Amino acid sequence: MAETGKIAAPQGPIHRAIPEGDNRERLLCRDCGFIHYQNPKIVVGAVVTWREEFLLCRRAIEPRRGYWTMPAGYLELNEGASAGAMREAWEEARARIAVDGLLAIYDVPRLSQIQLIYRAHLDAPEFAPGEESLEVRLYGWDEIPWTELAFPSVHWGLKHHRESAATGDFAARSQTF
Amino acid sequence: MAETGKIAAPQGPIHRAIPEGDNRERLLCRDCGFIHYQNPKIVVGAVVTWREEFLLCRRAIEPRRGYWTMPAGYLELNEGASAGAMREAWEEARARIAVDGLLAIYDVPRLSQIQLIYRAHLDAPEFAPGEESLEVRLYGWDEIPWTELAFPSVHWGLKHHRESAATGDFAARSQTF
Repeated sequence: MAETGKIAAPQGPIHRAIPEGDNRERLLCRDCGFIHYQNPKIVVGAVVTWREEFLLCRRAIEPRRGYWTMPAGYLELNEGASAGAMREAWEEARARIAVDGLLAIYDVPRLSQIQLIYRAHLDAPEFAPGEESLEVRLYGWDEIPWTELAFPSVHWGLKHHRESAATGDFAARSQTF
Repeated sequence: MAETGKIAAPQGPIHRAIPEGDNRERLLCRDCGFIHYQNPKIVVGAVVTWREEFLLCRRAIEPRRGYWTMPAGYLELNEGASAGAMREAWEEARARIAVDGLLAIYDVPRLSQIQLIYRAHLDAPEFAPGEESLEVRLYGWDEIPWTELAFPSVHWGLKHHRESAATGDFAARSQTF
């Protein structure tokens, strides 16, 4: 509590405590009482192909600036998951993608993420770097810069896509990492 | 800003504005500058069977107090999705469930929810109401109280489970509602 004549700046939800009726520590603000419930986040993305090639973006931002990724990012409020994957492809690669189905669900509790990765294709090889990309290009399977991929899920997505195409089994994978 | 000698209570993140470098309105606190990024939430749950019967819980809490649901709730930070479904079955139905696989992903943008619903079974018909349940019981398919189910996803889950059992196709469904 601030003393009269000496106003302390509010600190925001930085204090750990268990709210009444709850059974876990949450972050709360001692000034206004706001409880900041933190929840796992949903990442949506797509393995995007043009004929036999894969669309990858070289990241212009941290983390992993300079490394290659598929278009992906956080799902927004009131956004359908495949619509979110389409938005990310537009934002990062200026690509209009057609979504063919759900490729995989990656459950990554270490990062508190559920990733929904779609299979998608381009109807024309039209793309360009968005604000978060340095470069966008198509790679044949044997050209993919495996050692310069930004995140493990880029590996997983590309490999699951390859498996689906090889086996004809397009059922969504579900895997915990 | 509070005047000297007259301290206004902080209000918490209730003001809508677009933070610098962002492109959407977020809720922020004018007192401490905290930005409350709201994200869609992940619900985890399970259609749980004992032999040919389905485990349902009558809710002791709002919303939909008195109506029947499968065990389900919000995924916690750093929790695997199937582990979350097991925790919810314990909390709501004092049931130790064995998870057999992912039954379905329900994408509900209207509610900003992604629901991951598992197929699970009991190894023994042992259960009891947890704090959030008035009653827990097993229902044969023809006894299910269809008009007293708490949420549409309880219908969807039960029907998808029935379809999987009938067709032998246990690939996870992916559907937007």
